[in-house]
Amino acid sequence: MDLSHSVSGGINQESIMQVKSNANPNLKPIDSIEVSCSNKHEPLRAEAELSATKEKVLTGDRATGQLHLGHYVGSLQQRVKLQDVYHQTILVADMQGLTDNGHQPHKVASNIVNVVADYLAVGIDPLKTRICLQSAIPALAELTMYYSNLVSIARLERNPTVKNEIQSKSFGRSIPAGFLTYPISQAADITAFNATLVPVGEDQLPMLEQTNEIVRRLNHIAGRGVLNECKPLLSKVSRLPSTDGRSKMSKSMGNCQ
Amino acid sequence: MDLSHSVSGGINQESIMQVKSNANPNLKPIDSIEVSCSNKHEPLRAEAELSATKEKVLTGDRATGQLHLGHYVGSLQQRVKLQDVYHQTILVADMQGLTDNGHQPHKVASNIVNVVADYLAVGIDPLKTRICLQSAIPALAELTMYYSNLVSIARLERNPTVKNEIQSKSFGRSIPAGFLTYPISQAADITAFNATLVPVGEDQLPMLEQTNEIVRRLNHIAGRGVLNECKPLLSKVSRLPSTDGRSKMSKSMGNCQ
Repeated sequence: MDLSHSVSGGINQESIMQVKSNANPNLKPIDSIEVSCSNKHEPLRAEAELSATKEKVLTGDRATGQLHLGHYVGSLQQRVKLQDVYHQTILVADMQGLTDNGHQPHKVASNIVNVVADYLAVGIDPLKTRICLQSAIPALAELTMYYSNLVSIARLERNPTVKNEIQSKSFGRSIPAGFLTYPISQAADITAFNATLVPVGEDQLPMLEQTNEIVRRLNHIAGRGVLNECKPLLSKVSRLPSTDGRSKMSKSMGNCQ
Repeated sequence: MDLSHSVSGGINQESIMQVKSNANPNLKPIDSIEVSCSNKHEPLRAEAELSATKEKVLTGDRATGQLHLGHYVGSLQQRVKLQDVYHQTILVADMQGLTDNGHQPHKVASNIVNVVADYLAVGIDPLKTRICLQSAIPALAELTMYYSNLVSIARLERNPTVKNEIQSKSFGRSIPAGFLTYPISQAADITAFNATLVPVGEDQLPMLEQTNEIVRRLNHIAGRGVLNECKPLLSKVSRLPSTDGRSKMSKSMGNCQ
């Protein structure tokens, strides 16, 4: 499958440079944001049709398995509608998928194309929606590192979403640093694309609070509004019960069929 | 001061791509490693003189203040000699400097040129030693994120060097995530440059243990030797007592004069 026309690096380069220059005023601008799967020479129609008034929406999925009915009801259906109203970007979050799959990277790698294929199958139109691969945008890792100096370990350990997820996994005492800190990586994603609307389920609201805390802290340090806060766009069906009835449907927990 | 001839992105791009491709086999190679202060069009003499047999040495300093007598006796003198024997790279660690200065980035930014000027003043020759700016190499942040999935929070909290440093700072309960995880960033630095020798004081030995743990873990996942382990090159004077007699001389603790 040739994804070259559907994947773009539509990243808010200006904000990234403002963050970097506030963190390190001696730095020169990054010349270019590399997105390995974009076609740099052919402008996207979606890019050309961007209007300054539309809000930017960012959603995404971890590439840890095939999408399921829970995704369709809770998120994918909504995205098909959103692409006609907002500037929508969907991030295939392979870096985040690795945070609890560091020892089985092939599981994540092999699901990237599956996830994108599911997007196309349900009607997400690459001419209306940007689809980006997280690992192909080094600036997201850079922002994650800068932001990680503005968030304490104690704050991350208090995050209810992360706490619940840690309980449901078999980490024991070995919680990967990348897993505990993934809310910081999400903040990098949201702010890099300058997204002000983020479709989430109720269980993900603490992640947006964490992002907005980082935004306020960075703006305070900079002494001006470098980054924008984001608001949740709550799905009507935010949690589809799993087939075993114990929690929400989750591809990581294998309770979808 | 024009540093364009003295700073280069002499990074082990092959290893980085191997790490990335093991973490994510679908990725295409990064086209280029951006180093904002390098002169890409003029090859360095040091680059031209690289021989395959010399070992690679990586050292560096956090850009948090001017270098002092402790650095000179414990490290800088040695580097002047090492540059004639090994392929030496010195990393100006501004990203690491931010891990406990996230709220005062200008302190770090304003010291970058000072640190490099001190290198030149003591006889480090930019034609023999590569001097790189950490924040100018996005691949270091990317590797840090990949490696952070292979190290547990508990392991980081047990690191004796980090424990001592946390005690000496006034973080209270707010230890920045970037500070606790900086040994992972150091592992990224060492392995990105494929350094097999790292000059350190005795107090820094646990950092190299952490790097080698990551190296072994990554090689195990890959099923082959993608990365090389590193060895310490201990300085004869590893800790110069501070002027207040309480600990080692440290620019962060202001006990050098």
